Amino acid sequence: MEAETKERIAIVGSGLIGRCWAMLFARAGYFVSIYDIDSEQVKGALAATLPMLLDMESRDLLGGQKASDIQKQIQGTNQLEEAMQGAIHVQECVPESVDLKKRVFAQLDEHASDTVVLSSSTSCIVPSLFTEGLKHRSQCIVAHPVNPPYYIPLVELVPAAWTNPDVVRRTRALMADIGQAPVTLNKEVNGFILNRLQYALIMEAWRLVEDGVCSPEDVDTAMVEGLAPRYSFMGIFETMHLNADGMKDYCERYGANIKTVCETQSPARDLSGRTLSVVDDAMQRKVPVSGLGDRRKWRDRRLAALAVHKMMMKKEEAKSINP
Amino acid sequence: MEAETKERIAIVGSGLIGRCWAMLFARAGYFVSIYDIDSEQVKGALAATLPMLLDMESRDLLGGQKASDIQKQIQGTNQLEEAMQGAIHVQECVPESVDLKKRVFAQLDEHASDTVVLSSSTSCIVPSLFTEGLKHRSQCIVAHPVNPPYYIPLVELVPAAWTNPDVVRRTRALMADIGQAPVTLNKEVNGFILNRLQYALIMEAWRLVEDGVCSPEDVDTAMVEGLAPRYSFMGIFETMHLNADGMKDYCERYGANIKTVCETQSPARDLSGRTLSVVDDAMQRKVPVSGLGDRRKWRDRRLAALAVHKMMMKKEEAKSINP
Repeated sequence: MEAETKERIAIVGSGLIGRCWAMLFARAGYFVSIYDIDSEQVKGALAATLPMLLDMESRDLLGGQKASDIQKQIQGTNQLEEAMQGAIHVQECVPESVDLKKRVFAQLDEHASDTVVLSSSTSCIVPSLFTEGLKHRSQCIVAHPVNPPYYIPLVELVPAAWTNPDVVRRTRALMADIGQAPVTLNKEVNGFILNRLQYALIMEAWRLVEDGVCSPEDVDTAMVEGLAPRYSFMGIFETMHLNADGMKDYCERYGANIKTVCETQSPARDLSGRTLSVVDDAMQRKVPVSGLGDRRKWRDRRLAALAVHKMMMKKEEAKSINP
Repeated sequence: MEAETKERIAIVGSGLIGRCWAMLFARAGYFVSIYDIDSEQVKGALAATLPMLLDMESRDLLGGQKASDIQKQIQGTNQLEEAMQGAIHVQECVPESVDLKKRVFAQLDEHASDTVVLSSSTSCIVPSLFTEGLKHRSQCIVAHPVNPPYYIPLVELVPAAWTNPDVVRRTRALMADIGQAPVTLNKEVNGFILNRLQYALIMEAWRLVEDGVCSPEDVDTAMVEGLAPRYSFMGIFETMHLNADGMKDYCERYGANIKTVCETQSPARDLSGRTLSVVDDAMQRKVPVSGLGDRRKWRDRRLAALAVHKMMMKKEEAKSINP
């Protein structure tokens, strides 16, 4: 996250995700051009970045830089060619529709140099579905961020079968350079990594309620007050490794029973019917639909505070290693 | 967590879990008697509680009380009858063996009044396996803590079919009174709640590596930097509720695809073979088996810091509601 000016990045689509990407790249010193078809929307996007950057500055998440300086690194245009001029990386952030992605990537293909990376922010569409016919298809990749990306740094990189491995490496390096946490899929798979893990949890949570084992509230308590705290700083495999004398010992001791339990965790259920009513009632007692907006603000405040907490922990650990 | 002296609690077994329970009950004002068969071990357990209490005091986790005052609420004995004299709740903390639990619960049964709750700390043995033949079997329950329980407050309550519902209610109230976070299973199920969720995650993580989708390290990064932060303060169902216009909208929009993904998440795999080597190699590169002890200390420091962070967040929120 150095302040020197680096290469140019184009952001295609000026909605929330596009704005977030713009700030992340600009914070790391890149010169960012936001493109959208409507120049009023571009103007709105540029105006919206300053309050977001000021909020990050107040939490010491700009690496000592000033929000106003970072904002100067971000410009806007309603000319795609202008946005892509000299860019090393294009990050597409348009709504989730295969047809729309196809149209946008066809346009990107027209203006693409032979070295620029054409990257999509899609959370659920594998890249082969919208890049197959392109001249520059070997330069296409998915780089899926999590919302809000300045507090949740994961970026999932998904290449198509025809994506050049060098494009994958360059994109991973770029994401690490801007302070995000990239992971790489070696092949296309529905749900990528994060949602495959999340869906496995959702389905087991659903079964527990549907089979009358416990209430929806107690499922959520078990996660928040029991399982999740360690996962906020330590992964699934490392947790296993530490809960025995290493991974092999863990699998020898517990592997057979884990398999036995998991054999009862299928088939998948429909997320509907009476169980949906039970779960929905429980959630509406906690947060009525009319209160979702406020609760999302609460969530984002908590995510921000947790990101700061994790950053402080890392700084303390670095200090105790190099005092 | 008031400081007044409340009723008596007996702890059966003076290992780490027994000591933790003793501190939790004493912190909340209960008078605690730790029983173990060997009086030297009892003495060791009593001596070990002070440094643990001092550490909690230094993190402001004793509700303003002094560690030395709380320690005075804890006594020890090698006479089971003496420990159980006048106790409202007995918490068994012996090693995980059905035969051993059977023997210990037979002894508890002998000395039990008609009102005392006989509770086991077991993480994996359903209570019907060691309480069936007992005179006081309707007073038996499992109350499974998570380690370390003063930083991870979840307690899973598992009744047998013959457990009196009033025993479930009283145990839940007691756990809430000492500042833990109880959840109630309505029936016995292998893995209870926490491990059923954990095992669903482990199995999908395993599949991702075994099927060549990504590396073990990237699975862990996806959890730590992507999925888990929100779960450290918000449950599985509430996350769904907030990620759309409520739970019903979420299930309408995403339910079909979630089911499609989950249909590919079976059958269960063996946690062995080549994938075990790949995962074990990755974990040993990160933490060699010789370094597990230090890494566990790191984990517990991080859990402690996170518990303090969560406590501060709750205090701030309470203040902003009642300034």
